[in-house]
Parts: sequence; C-alpha cells; structure tokens
Amino acid sequence: MEVLSRNDSSSASNASFKREDPLVDFKRNVDDFFLITNSIVICLMQCGFACLEAGSVRAKNATNIMMKNMMDMFICGACYWLIGYSLAFGTGSPLVGIGDYVAGRGLAAGALFSHWFFQFTFAATAATIVSGAVAERCTFASYLTYSAVISGIVYPVASHWAWSDEGWLSKLGYKDFAGSGVVHLLGGVCAFVGALLLGPRTGRFDNKTPQNETFAGHSTPLVGVGAMILFTGFLAFNGGSLGHISHHGDGELVAKVLANTALGGAGGALVTMALGRAGLAGQAGKWSFLISLNGALTGMVSVCASADQLQLWASIFLGAIAGPIYCFVSQALVRFKVHGGGGVWGLLGGAILRSDTVVAGDFGLAGLLIGYNLVGVLAIAAWAGGTCCILFGLLRRGNLLRVSQEEELEGMDRTKHSEPAYPGPPWHVKNNANAGEVFRNQAFVSEE
Amino acid sequence: MEVLSRNDSSSASNASFKREDPLVDFKRNVDDFFLITNSIVICLMQCGFACLEAGSVRAKNATNIMMKNMMDMFICGACYWLIGYSLAFGTGSPLVGIGDYVAGRGLAAGALFSHWFFQFTFAATAATIVSGAVAERCTFASYLTYSAVISGIVYPVASHWAWSDEGWLSKLGYKDFAGSGVVHLLGGVCAFVGALLLGPRTGRFDNKTPQNETFAGHSTPLVGVGAMILFTGFLAFNGGSLGHISHHGDGELVAKVLANTALGGAGGALVTMALGRAGLAGQAGKWSFLISLNGALTGMVSVCASADQLQLWASIFLGAIAGPIYCFVSQALVRFKVHGGGGVWGLLGGAILRSDTVVAGDFGLAGLLIGYNLVGVLAIAAWAGGTCCILFGLLRRGNLLRVSQEEELEGMDRTKHSEPAYPGPPWHVKNNANAGEVFRNQAFVSEE
Amino acid sequence: MEVLSRNDSSSASNASFKREDPLVDFKRNVDDFFLITNSIVICLMQCGFACLEAGSVRAKNATNIMMKNMMDMFICGACYWLIGYSLAFGTGSPLVGIGDYVAGRGLAAGALFSHWFFQFTFAATAATIVSGAVAERCTFASYLTYSAVISGIVYPVASHWAWSDEGWLSKLGYKDFAGSGVVHLLGGVCAFVGALLLGPRTGRFDNKTPQNETFAGHSTPLVGVGAMILFTGFLAFNGGSLGHISHHGDGELVAKVLANTALGGAGGALVTMALGRAGLAGQAGKWSFLISLNGALTGMVSVCASADQLQLWASIFLGAIAGPIYCFVSQALVRFKVHGGGGVWGLLGGAILRSDTVVAGDFGLAGLLIGYNLVGVLAIAAWAGGTCCILFGLLRRGNLLRVSQEEELEGMDRTKHSEPAYPGPPWHVKNNANAGEVFRNQAFVSEE
Repeated sequence: MEVLSRNDSSSASNASFKREDPLVDFKRNVDDFFLITNSIVICLMQCGFACLEAGSVRAKNATNIMMKNMMDMFICGACYWLIGYSLAFGTGSPLVGIGDYVAGRGLAAGALFSHWFFQFTFAATAATIVSGAVAERCTFASYLTYSAVISGIVYPVASHWAWSDEGWLSKLGYKDFAGSGVVHLLGGVCAFVGALLLGPRTGRFDNKTPQNETFAGHSTPLVGVGAMILFTGFLAFNGGSLGHISHHGDGELVAKVLANTALGGAGGALVTMALGRAGLAGQAGKWSFLISLNGALTGMVSVCASADQLQLWASIFLGAIAGPIYCFVSQALVRFKVHGGGGVWGLLGGAILRSDTVVAGDFGLAGLLIGYNLVGVLAIAAWAGGTCCILFGLLRRGNLLRVSQEEELEGMDRTKHSEPAYPGPPWHVKNNANAGEVFRNQAFVSEE
Repeated sequence: MEVLSRNDSSSASNASFKREDPLVDFKRNVDDFFLITNSIVICLMQCGFACLEAGSVRAKNATNIMMKNMMDMFICGACYWLIGYSLAFGTGSPLVGIGDYVAGRGLAAGALFSHWFFQFTFAATAATIVSGAVAERCTFASYLTYSAVISGIVYPVASHWAWSDEGWLSKLGYKDFAGSGVVHLLGGVCAFVGALLLGPRTGRFDNKTPQNETFAGHSTPLVGVGAMILFTGFLAFNGGSLGHISHHGDGELVAKVLANTALGGAGGALVTMALGRAGLAGQAGKWSFLISLNGALTGMVSVCASADQLQLWASIFLGAIAGPIYCFVSQALVRFKVHGGGGVWGLLGGAILRSDTVVAGDFGLAGLLIGYNLVGVLAIAAWAGGTCCILFGLLRRGNLLRVSQEEELEGMDRTKHSEPAYPGPPWHVKNNANAGEVFRNQAFVSEE
Repeated sequence: MEVLSRNDSSSASNASFKREDPLVDFKRNVDDFFLITNSIVICLMQCGFACLEAGSVRAKNATNIMMKNMMDMFICGACYWLIGYSLAFGTGSPLVGIGDYVAGRGLAAGALFSHWFFQFTFAATAATIVSGAVAERCTFASYLTYSAVISGIVYPVASHWAWSDEGWLSKLGYKDFAGSGVVHLLGGVCAFVGALLLGPRTGRFDNKTPQNETFAGHSTPLVGVGAMILFTGFLAFNGGSLGHISHHGDGELVAKVLANTALGGAGGALVTMALGRAGLAGQAGKWSFLISLNGALTGMVSVCASADQLQLWASIFLGAIAGPIYCFVSQALVRFKVHGGGGVWGLLGGAILRSDTVVAGDFGLAGLLIGYNLVGVLAIAAWAGGTCCILFGLLRRGNLLRVSQEEELEGMDRTKHSEPAYPGPPWHVKNNANAGEVFRNQAFVSEE
C-alpha cells in the first residue's frame, strides 16, 4: 500500500489546482471516488465484526460486545482525527510522524481527506480485532483505554513505518500491500497480550467445567452473518489498498486483488473444512462451520500482504496453507490464530509465492523479501506487544482490567449496561391449536 | 443538495448528445456512476431501519415492523414514480412542481434517471422514519396510507421547496446539504404527529405497569446491527448528496463530507455515552448501548445540513451538542428526538459552525443563515405536521388508525399476518450429556 | 449482457497497452471500477441468501444451511477458476468454450480479471439458489458435489450459449440482459430437480402432520433481513450487467436498470400482498410478509431479462404479473416459483413489454423475440434439468443423496456439524424484580 502514502502527491495536488489539465483533475476525483466507495464498504466490516463477536459470546454479554464494536468506530474517529493520522502520515522521522495533521489541520491544504478517511477505516479495523479476544471479562474502562491507544497510537506508528514514504520499514523494502502485518498481525498481537494479561474466563480451560456446554457462543447464525459481511468487506479492504484507479492498468490490478482475496479465502475454507472432517482440527469428523469460517478469514488475511503480486493459483495455495496454520496452532486464541497466524504467514509465504520472486526464478529476491518481511513481523510484534504489555499491565496493576467474578457470572449486559440482549418474554410459540392463548398466558403474563 | 436539481442541466444533457466533447460525456457517466453507487448503499439503509425497529419492538410485532420497512421501499417506488418526483422536481411554481414527470414521463428525455433513483432512495428514507414511532399499534391500512402520502406528496413538496431551482426555500437562501430538515425533521415530525394521534401503547406511561419489563424491545443485537448498517448508509447518504464527482475538487469534498459524518456520529456517541454513564440520560450510571447508539444517529443527522461546509472539529462539536439534545428532550419519542431534534439542531447549529459564517468572522451571514434555516424549520414542520394531522386525523375519525386492544395484546404478527416472528419450538438446547434426547423430546415433540 | 463478453475486446485491450489515448485507457479503468464495485455488492447477496434460507429452516438446521451458503462462494471460486470461466468464455464452439482460461491462464494477457470476477459472482449466485430447495435433508457430500458441478459446469455452459459472442443462443437472437434465464431459471430448475429426487421432508405434505406447526422456518426477521440485502444486491446485479459505464449514455442506462429493478420488485410485492390479503394466495385474508417478500423477489427476477429495454411503467407491470405467477403456481417449491417462474415470465413477458417490440408497434419483432427466448427457456431448462437429473440421480442411486431419517429428525446441526445454531442456555430473562437471580439460577445452571 505504499501508493497510499500521499506525502509525495501534495505537489501534484497543488498543480491540479491550476487546472492545467482537465483530465488529470478528473482522474484525481475518480481516484477519490474509488477510495471513498471502498471506505464505505470497509465501514460495514464494523457491523461484520460486531455480528461475528456477538454470536461468539454468550447471550449475557452480547450487548456489551456489540457496544464495543460500535464504539470502536467512533473512538477511533476521534483519536485518529486528533493524533493518529499525524503520527502515521506526518513528516518527521523514520520512526514516527510529527504533528503536521494534529486535529485535522493541513488535511484540506494537502487534499488528503480521502486518504484520511480510508486510513481511518483501517485504523478502526485494527482496533476492532481486539474486542473479541478479551470479551466477556474486560472492563469497559479498559476497553475505552485500549481502543483509544491502539487506534490513536499503536496502529498509526506501525503504519508510519510501513506505509509512509519515510518509514523505516518502507525504506528497508518491507512489502505489505493491504496490511497482513500492519493491520492483522498488529491487531492479533494486541489481542493476544490483552487476553494473556486478563486471563481466561472463569472456568475456561478448567477440568471440571464442561467446556463446550459452558462457553459456546450463543448464536451460530449471527457468527455466520458477520463472517459473510467480513468476506465482502475484505474485497474492498484489499482492493482499495491500491489507493488509485486511474493509472494505467489499475482496474485490472484491483480486479486481480479481489480475485486473489476470494481465492485465498477459498483455499483456507476448503482445506480447514477437510481437516475438520478428517478429525484433524479439534472436532471429531464433523463438517465444522466455525472452523471453515475461520479458515476462510485466515486465508484472506494471509493474502493481504501480496494480493497485488500473486497469481490466482498462488492465492489458493497461500490460503490453503493458512488453513492448517489456523488449525494446528491449537492452544492459541481464535483471534490470534486468524489475524496473527494469517498475518505472519501472509508476509513470509507471500514473499515466496508472489510472481516476482520464486515463481520468476529469482531466489535472491525471495530471500531478501523474506528477510525484510521477517524484520517487519518482529518489529510490529515487538511494538504492538510492548505497548500492549504496558497498557494492559498498568490497567491490571490498577485493578481496572477485569470485571469482578460476580459480574462475570451475571454477565455484563445486566451489570454494566442494564440492557440484556434479549429482554422480554420468550419469543417462541408452541404451535398448537390454541397457540394464541398459550402465547398470551405464558409469555406476556407481565403485561396484565 | 441544490446541485442535485438538474432542471438546469437538461440543456447540458442535450448538448452531450452531440458528442462534442468526449470528456464531458464521460464525466456525465461517472457522475451517474457516483449517484448510482451511493443509491445502492442507501437502499441498504432500509435493511438497517428494519433491523433497528424490529429489535426495538416486542417479539409479537417483529414480523409486522419488518414488513412495513420492506414495503416502504416498494410503496415509495410506485408513488414516487407516479407523482412524487413530478411534485418535487417538475417545473411550475415555488410551492410545488407540476406534472412534468408524472408516471415517469420525461425522465428519458431529460436524462434524469440517476437523479430520479437517488431521490427515490431519499423519499423512501423519509417515509421509513415513521414506522418505528407508530409501531405495535398502527393498523396496516393506516400504514399503507401514510407511507404512500408521505413518500408521494409530503416529502416531494418539501424537497421541491428546498432542492429544486425554483423552490421558495431554495431561493430564500435556506441551506440543507443532505436533508437535516427535508428528510429528518420532516420524517421526525410525521412520526411525532402519528404517535400523538395514535396514543401510546396500552399500559405505556402507566404507573401500574412495569415499564422496562413490559416494553423493552426483544433483541438488542438486532438493534445494533441495524444501527451499524445505518452508520454505513449515512456515509453514502451524505456523500452522495453532492450529486456529482467530476467537478474540480469534488472527490476531496465528498471525502470531507464522509469524515464529517463519521465524526458527527463520534461526537454524539461519545457525549451521550458519557452522559448515560454519569446518570444524566435516563439510566443510572450505566454504559448504555441504546443511548449511545441513538446519540450517534442524532449526531449524524445534525451533520447533514452543513456536511459540505464544516471543518472536522466543527462536526465533532456539532455532534457533541446533538447528544445532550437527544438525552434531555426526555419525554419525546425516540424517533422524534433523533430525527427531529437532530434535524433542527443541524439546521441552526450548522449555520453557526460552518466555515463561512462565525468561523470566518462573518456574523452577519451567520444571522441571515440562521434566519433562513429557521424559516425552513418552521415551514417544513408546519407542512409535515399539518398534512399528517389531516391524514392521521381522518384515519382516526374513521376508526381506521389503531388496532383493537385485543389485537394489540395478542400482537400483530399473529392477528394481522398469521406469521409469528419466531414460530416453531424453542431454539435452545440444554447442553448436558443427553442433550440430543432432551432436544428431541422437548422441542420437536410436535414432529411425532 | 452480451456486452459483458470481452472476447472481442482483447484487441482493444492490447491497443490500450500502447497508451495511445490516455482517455481510452482511463475509461477502461473506470469500466473495471464499475464492474468491481458492483461485484462487491453482489458478493453481499451471498449473505442475503444465507439469512433468507437460515430463517426459513428450523433451528435444528440453521448452521447447516448457513455453512452451505458460505461455502458456495468458495467452492464456486475454486471451480470457476479451474474450469468454469474457460467453459463459459473460452473460444471453441457455439456449445461450449474450450480451455483457453483453465486454472486462470490467459486472464492477465486478455485483461479479463474484472470480467472474471464479475462472472464469478454470477456463478456463485446461480449455485446458491439450490441450497434452499434441498434444505434440511440433503447430505453434505451431495451438497459439495452439486455446488461444484453447477458453478463449474452447468452455469458456465449456459452462460456460454447466451453471453459469449459465439454462443448459439446469443447468435440466434436470445436476449437476456441480466440473467432471468441463465441465472434464475437455471438455478430454479436445478433446485426443482434436486428437490424432486430428494423427496419432501419427512412428514411434509402428509395429512397427519400439522404442516405450519412442523415446518415453519424458525426466524421471520432473519428471512426479512436476507430479503432486504437481496433487494439491494439485485440493483448491482442488474445494473452491473451492462458491463461498462464509459460509453455514451451508460450512466443513464444503468440508472434506468436500477429503477426498473426496484419497480419490478414493487409491482411484485404490491400485487402479491393484495392477493394474499384477498385470500387468493394461500393465507386466508392476511397481510403476508413472506408472500409479499417472495413476490418482490419474483418481480425483480422477471425484470432481469429486459431491464435495459423496459420503460418504468412496463417494469411495474411485468412485476405485477410476476406476482400472481408466484402465487398461483401453488404446489411448486418456493425457490422454483421465484427463480423459475420469475425467470420464464421475464424472458417471455419481457419480450412483449420491452420498448422496441409491442410498445413500438413492432409485433413481428415481438414474435421473433418470444420465439428466440422460448428456445432459450427450453434449452436452458433441458440442460439444467438433464445434468441435474444425472447428478442427483447418481447420488441417489449411490445412497448418498439424503440423510437418514434419524439425522433428519435430530437435525443436521448436531449430527453433521456438532454445532447447534443456538447453543447455550435460553436467552430470555423473566423481567421481574429479582431477574438477576432467576436468570442465574435458571439459565446458567451449567456454569456452577
């Protein structure tokens, strides 16, 4: 996504104000239109994450997790406006941008609004990955803190490294087209550290508590709806990462990115489904929906880094390997496996499978790129892990990190929000002759 | 949205048929593409409203409200085709358009299809706002009537005033970029009048009925999904209101509108969340999801009127003030607070906060604009309120407005539709050793 | 959709690589952008189908049907990449394309990625229509087989006939703008044959089993959400079928297609709603949500074939006739009525109502077109029916087609997936004074 950096384009933008060439001016508008449209679809991913995570938790915490996903967009909006974009795309140093764009200043002069908005949707995505991993036990104050810090500082700094012209990873030769590392690995590591410092839910990984019975999410269809919205959103996420549509060949390239995204997902979904059926992925010989779904997501995550450089077969292959990576990293958190495992594999495996390295016979370049991307993996993991250790560590030391066990058992919807996810009487109706009466008598007794 | 009026563009359109300038011809296509794409996203808002409202009612009325939201799109389509667009954008007088486009005539000649479709999605939105406010007690016949009248007459006339070249509000100087007044205030007032003449649900605001227990909506996650779809749709709603993407600077301007929309929502969400937590918004010291969500929507509504003229900080501020407006208008209907309160504040507060008035030191212009917009507020409220008083008043006099108390208690899904929202046996499974048996015995007993 | 065939455009594409004309090059990019954007929205239709079908089955099979809808996208991706696109758009013969594009070869050279991706979303749609009709009793192995065969062979061959330059239906004069026949009739016939060879669900159409009580879907709101996503997706499906946006008049034409799609849905929805209310569509005198919703879908399907050639009134009329066709084909499967009935009516009725035949007084052309389209109907039905008879017949003979009666009664979510749709304790909370205690005691007893 190096092209998304527009530090170099402000001169072009100024030039365009002279209206020298109407075609150049028009192309600029269409490029913005392209970014805007993809940004809108990416915003819908917040709804996808919300559904996925709400379906994955128990009914007593569904309002809580919906609210966290909803607020991520708004907390990120405020923090990315205030400081985030400036840290990411301000000029300054290879390590961090300085305050060129604090509180939105300078965006108008630089014609950077469409870039800002697109990057904002990325920052919101990075922050949203965390909520699922710390669900059902993280306090709301902790949530507000980490959401602000990740979208306002942690993600922006990493994106400065990789996607601004002067970032050190960018200069080194690190390649991450749509964020396998910058978005997904980063989000996955934050999620991992948060979950580690929080500890598991009470009774989780406990020999005497029946695990599936106690910890199963409350609505598989809601998980499915979320995943399918995410699949759609991923197309815009990866496709939009090119950043423009008016250069020679852009349309075809973006279409190839979309095809690679879908096929990476296909590789991941088909292989994990088969592994699950073969009893190699946790469930004994079943066609697991949830495993297949997470396999598809892991495949799509792994395609991000090189989506512009992969041939279609290579995407299927990349996704197909991402599947087992998801399945066999068996003790880790789901979120970490999908985003962290998929992200690392995307950066390293993608460096091998892209068209200009091993496929083209250039093993030297492959080695270099693996090296650069490995540096990126380590740097991003260290940065995200380090800042989150401090962040979550301080919250933990202050006894602010985790809710009380009473609240956890009761569920956060009642204790923190007074808004049960499903208030009111049972929905269901015994479908027999006098259903109406039964319905009224049993269910709406409180109405008399 | 004055630019959306294309009365003046038919000559340009005719010119383009001569193919004098291929770039002009192409730009016209891309402008249409821009409108089309945003229209499609706005159509998804119907799904958002449906989810929001279905989650907000009790399970016994969920089918009913889903159906009303679905049919709004189709009733509006038929009425807007037959008469609505003609009243809105036909030439004739400052008060109302005449029959230039009745039953779709003249659209092809004027190259107006993309404008028609975009405006149709706006009309459907205006009509859809009402259904939530009159839910759970309004007859289906009343619904059909008001949906047709609002989308075919009430909204079109107001949009003629504000958005056609010859409309009197437009000529006066009223500024309403994306419909704080024309869509939201109008819809909010219609909703308010409808609810007023219907009266509250049986037992609502009644000292002996436990309010929260009896009237809580049945699915908070469904409300959340709806809201998050609406947030996404709002971006296209406000962004698309520019009406074109090919003029110099359009891309940046639309991106700024999107950023303003998201940040207006952020202001509203963050402030209402804090007020709720502080015990100042109805719930005692809780992190209220529903209050925050409505705060976000109110913030977005308030940004509509001046989204093209606000700096980013001003949007946050506008949304932040919209929050308390939502919270403190405490006795009014939720729908009215969001759309009515947000709409009025958007027209007046936006006149102050936009870049060319107070911010630029031009207090005179600010005063004028507040005056013009206040005239618009009063005129739109009077028009919508007056027509709806007649409409709902006649329905009430004819005893057609409200369902019987029996039907209300039983729920409309059974009495009006014979389609309970959740038919069949309970979904849930006791997760114990012999779950399968329990499941089969308890739940599917009717299958033997 | 003949324009979607780009066999003829490879020369233009090669020309564009010379960069002779920057405007031509740019137009090509914008055409790709148009296809890409619509493709992304069409992908969301998979989520729509998933919700529609999951809500229509019983809770014990909801995970199963969600998984099938999710995997359709990925199975189709793999098969369409491997062989499907080659059969559809490879050169070779009027009957079938040969291996020009096997496993994605040749796509880059031909600049065909955006065409590939758009067509892939169509193939996935065709395959997805089937799952609802064979729900709750089809084995997973059968599902995998038919999904691969339909998206990899059956649909591609039919689309070669109708939409490639050398296809025999295309040369004959068959007109099917957006797939009334190629997508919907084909999908509907496959669904019909599958359901026929599977036989009905145990107890279905059985005098002693109470039908509504036993076979009602489990969530009407989920059906509604699915339908409303599909309405939105249909706009992109039909609009995108033009295949380009840069030719003179394209923007207006696509907007007209969108308006026709919405109005065809309106005709279908309003007429079926009225028929249902009048007691003429199965339910006695009720406002049926499900009938209206299927009427709207049938109307939209019927508009596909001639969406580019219909005046707005003609779309309403076409949809309005599609309504009764849906209602009165009363013994057939819902899926077959919507997609099959709507598809056939679209091909024949559309030939009458389009602007250049009867409306223009050219009865001869109308007759010819009816004839050509009737040939198409018969050919597509024979092809889809024949291949599916073999496919499902072999599966049936091998005893692989249908699950055991035990599994059917228990539900597939537990037996095939070990993933009940709604695991965990009941969601609902008795809203009384000591709700917390009751909630904890009753619901989360398994947590102790």
